[in-house]
Amino acid sequence: MGMVLVSGGMDSLVCAAIAAKIHPQLYFLHLNYGQLTESKELWCFQQIADHYAVPDARRKIIDISFLKEIGGSSLTDQRLEVRTGGVVDSSIPNSYVPFRNTIILSLAVAWAEVVGVRKIYIGAVHEDSSGYPDCRPSYYRALNTLITEGTKAGSEGSGIEVITPVIDHSKDKIVKRGMELSAPFHLSWSCYKSGDFACGVCDSCLLRLRAFARAGVKDPIKYRVY
Amino acid sequence: MGMVLVSGGMDSLVCAAIAAKIHPQLYFLHLNYGQLTESKELWCFQQIADHYAVPDARRKIIDISFLKEIGGSSLTDQRLEVRTGGVVDSSIPNSYVPFRNTIILSLAVAWAEVVGVRKIYIGAVHEDSSGYPDCRPSYYRALNTLITEGTKAGSEGSGIEVITPVIDHSKDKIVKRGMELSAPFHLSWSCYKSGDFACGVCDSCLLRLRAFARAGVKDPIKYRVY
Repeated sequence: MGMVLVSGGMDSLVCAAIAAKIHPQLYFLHLNYGQLTESKELWCFQQIADHYAVPDARRKIIDISFLKEIGGSSLTDQRLEVRTGGVVDSSIPNSYVPFRNTIILSLAVAWAEVVGVRKIYIGAVHEDSSGYPDCRPSYYRALNTLITEGTKAGSEGSGIEVITPVIDHSKDKIVKRGMELSAPFHLSWSCYKSGDFACGVCDSCLLRLRAFARAGVKDPIKYRVY
Repeated sequence: MGMVLVSGGMDSLVCAAIAAKIHPQLYFLHLNYGQLTESKELWCFQQIADHYAVPDARRKIIDISFLKEIGGSSLTDQRLEVRTGGVVDSSIPNSYVPFRNTIILSLAVAWAEVVGVRKIYIGAVHEDSSGYPDCRPSYYRALNTLITEGTKAGSEGSGIEVITPVIDHSKDKIVKRGMELSAPFHLSWSCYKSGDFACGVCDSCLLRLRAFARAGVKDPIKYRVY
């Protein structure tokens, strides 16, 4: 059995496609942390879960919108502008939620321990992470050490491990890999804004559009035409 | 500035007393995870915060009661009996919430990064932890490595560190240390059940009573007389 963190974006979609090839039974976890795009992402989560025939009992949505109270991020703070204009440097963008991946993955580990899952897949990507410190391979090595130390100790520990199958991929390689696995890209959402159409100008849209262009594939989702 | 995780129990109380000696400004964090004793613990948290003159703006209570949905613990599941009769073996008790300390500390790290705090105090105790894997010193070493990897990278990282000042203490040493620091033990609560009086028979009460007895100090809280 495998667990996949499914945000609704294309990286986690491709992770789900990869995990589906390995595990006959999948658990899907979605975290609602009060992001502006939540309703859209939740729709994508359910559609992707349907696509991979994940039964309701193995889907979980956890509301961690209290992260808004902690603050520090434009993804969870409507007063801050979403940054546009391209990812041009390696500084950490204002969409950064401190230590977010650790919070999310700690919850995944807790659920995995309860249901007996050992492999947790997350679509972290190093290259296009815009400097998020918790997207680096060294972070995941440290996390897996912590999981070994911090979960129920049998003779061999819980055996729970976080796997990052696309962490070393470029975004266009993720698109190509997803195409090979017939991942339903039309059910994914990357835009930092919500709506029927992706904005096409936020950092996340620009990365996605560039990835599809480089992969030589047409992105099946709809973009606003200015 | 220092941050203290204040559950309302005596270990975190003594941590607060230790941190108050070092840091003129304290932040207090309390996690409500749907435990049966929450109202009592919250009262203790506020009283202890008053005692150490922590202003409201530096107190935070985060509701993580969704941990109930993840399951696996009698502290958060009223259908399971609270275990009584003494901690007699090193097996993990049924009050175990998987990976709970990592979830809690991830939230503390996020808040610390936002407000600029570098030292986070938690009253983890190895000896009396009844086998909780995330109370071991090796767990905290792994956690601090993860924090270095996963928080905002300046030239020297965020510098955030989790400190466990009583982890190697016996419970009676914690009582003695608290007495030296004039910690207000009458404002703390350890019982697994809630009420005006502590039950005196649950594992946590037994550990507390034994600690005060060994320290040669009278516990100022009231116990039910059977």
